Amino acid sequence: MMVETLKDIGEFGLIRRIDALLKREGIQAPGVMLGIGDDTASFKARPGHEILVTCDAVVEGRHFLSRHISPLDLGRRSMMLNISDIGAMGGHPLYALVSLGLKKDALVRDIEHLYRGFLEELNPFSASIIGGNLTLSGDGMFIDITLIGEVEEGRAVRRSGAKPGDEILVTGYPGHSAAGLRLLAQSLATEDHPLVRAYNKPSHRAREGRAVALTGRARAMIDTSDGFLGDLGHICEESAAGALLIQKDFPISDELREAAELLKQEPKEFFLRDSDDYQLIITCAPEDAGAIRAAIALTYNGPVTKVGRITAPDKGIRLLLPDGSEQALFAKGWDHFG
Amino acid sequence: MMVETLKDIGEFGLIRRIDALLKREGIQAPGVMLGIGDDTASFKARPGHEILVTCDAVVEGRHFLSRHISPLDLGRRSMMLNISDIGAMGGHPLYALVSLGLKKDALVRDIEHLYRGFLEELNPFSASIIGGNLTLSGDGMFIDITLIGEVEEGRAVRRSGAKPGDEILVTGYPGHSAAGLRLLAQSLATEDHPLVRAYNKPSHRAREGRAVALTGRARAMIDTSDGFLGDLGHICEESAAGALLIQKDFPISDELREAAELLKQEPKEFFLRDSDDYQLIITCAPEDAGAIRAAIALTYNGPVTKVGRITAPDKGIRLLLPDGSEQALFAKGWDHFG
Repeated sequence: MMVETLKDIGEFGLIRRIDALLKREGIQAPGVMLGIGDDTASFKARPGHEILVTCDAVVEGRHFLSRHISPLDLGRRSMMLNISDIGAMGGHPLYALVSLGLKKDALVRDIEHLYRGFLEELNPFSASIIGGNLTLSGDGMFIDITLIGEVEEGRAVRRSGAKPGDEILVTGYPGHSAAGLRLLAQSLATEDHPLVRAYNKPSHRAREGRAVALTGRARAMIDTSDGFLGDLGHICEESAAGALLIQKDFPISDELREAAELLKQEPKEFFLRDSDDYQLIITCAPEDAGAIRAAIALTYNGPVTKVGRITAPDKGIRLLLPDGSEQALFAKGWDHFG
Repeated sequence: MMVETLKDIGEFGLIRRIDALLKREGIQAPGVMLGIGDDTASFKARPGHEILVTCDAVVEGRHFLSRHISPLDLGRRSMMLNISDIGAMGGHPLYALVSLGLKKDALVRDIEHLYRGFLEELNPFSASIIGGNLTLSGDGMFIDITLIGEVEEGRAVRRSGAKPGDEILVTGYPGHSAAGLRLLAQSLATEDHPLVRAYNKPSHRAREGRAVALTGRARAMIDTSDGFLGDLGHICEESAAGALLIQKDFPISDELREAAELLKQEPKEFFLRDSDDYQLIITCAPEDAGAIRAAIALTYNGPVTKVGRITAPDKGIRLLLPDGSEQALFAKGWDHFG
């Protein structure tokens, strides 16, 4: 039985196949005036809304290894991390442009599964793929997605609004993804381990981000894609603020505690450092925390944990240890070039 | 003297350098509510306009060889081809997102020159870079640009509107770029040769495309990035039409004639086949050609040539040879996977 590769069907053949798949399995989003098949795509913005736009690239060998993730999960993950960015502004995803760099021996069915992964993430929002680009790449494939969304004018929640005294809230369990990756890389766990699943099949908090924005009570919000500390660092930098974190309050699950022991590392290091969890960090005045928790609870039944507070900028980001002493933390996020 | 590489300054160091360069040398476009430095960029669409969005990736080893093109020219070229797409719809470029895949030994000054190249193309339109992504790539760099533009509602010129009887007009000299690339690859000419310049420093017809759209007289329009025949093929496919081309009317310059002789190929092959010239193909009713020529002449003093007419679809695309006989042409564009 022949398995089709790109070379067998050519660029225009692949475009036709993808186009057919999108028509069959995707959603025709409202507002689109022109999709795939012209020089550009085109849509009409809704009055009273800002347009949000973000892009993120995923590169083989850097962000994933094809032997560790299926094409479907890779598609979901690549789209998910863009949806997470739109949600962290309080927006709703609308339109995606997908730019692929493909290896010449890529299998057509793998590419189709990749697109199914994109659609699994987009369809629940009635969002659609309206354009993109296909090219051959060198020794690794890349997936570069531009995602366009909208948010009601004036409702976007930035990184720059945090104020001293704000509570720092975080959803879920940052660190699970990093620990899962380490377990996988060291062959200490298989794909059905909950932490490995957190890495391979992450979920976003985009609906929760939007609900938070609509309360009008959040002062700053960001998704954790550079690790909790890196992303809190972005908030502090953009807000010209510092932070005091309280270690005993960190949301550390039993699974993470066990994995950390196996990996001979402190659990808090997984919580703080590089990890692709796509949870939300939110800062707000203490009296607004209840409304924000209630908004998140509409669609998420995981924990929302207060892990510290925003301070004046002069002391940077510090950690209050269980013994009452303080430690200066280095707010360094995921550095792709490090 | 030390020459800085990516590894020396890290991802966030590079982001700060690029940010500073954009602030210093770029233009702060109107309508932007939020640029680089948050989860997403954000802008407000103008009432009465459609948003146009396109993306194109340029991959080292596939679309360029770094020994043949300077970082500045590479930046110009990568942005230019997106501007060309917006112009071919009749739109005006507004905002770019630049996603780079960089080799770890890339020089910081080369990346800065790349961004200067982007700005050289964007600044004349008061368009700006509002976001993007940086990552390490494998054995070759890639530049993936998403460009957002606008066009007055209902004014966009699609590929799908061509009608039998329409004149087929083309600007400039398609084929120059392909011939220049061949001369360069075979070391038959240096960078100051006009055809090599057409390849290395192409210019777009975006202003002319917009002027054409505003006449309201064009039925179909596309830019030539897949070669004249490939792009005319896109118009015919989307319009369910055919075409008759008249060889004796093709715009073949003396330079192309000389180069073709040197390269032992017929000049018309360069005109018809794969070539990145970013000229415009326009179809219109014969009585509207004058208004369209006048619109183009506002900003372009090169030729606008009638090279044939749109026909019924049943005979595909044919070529009328100088001896009066007809040849069936295979409308096959640039196939990246071929």
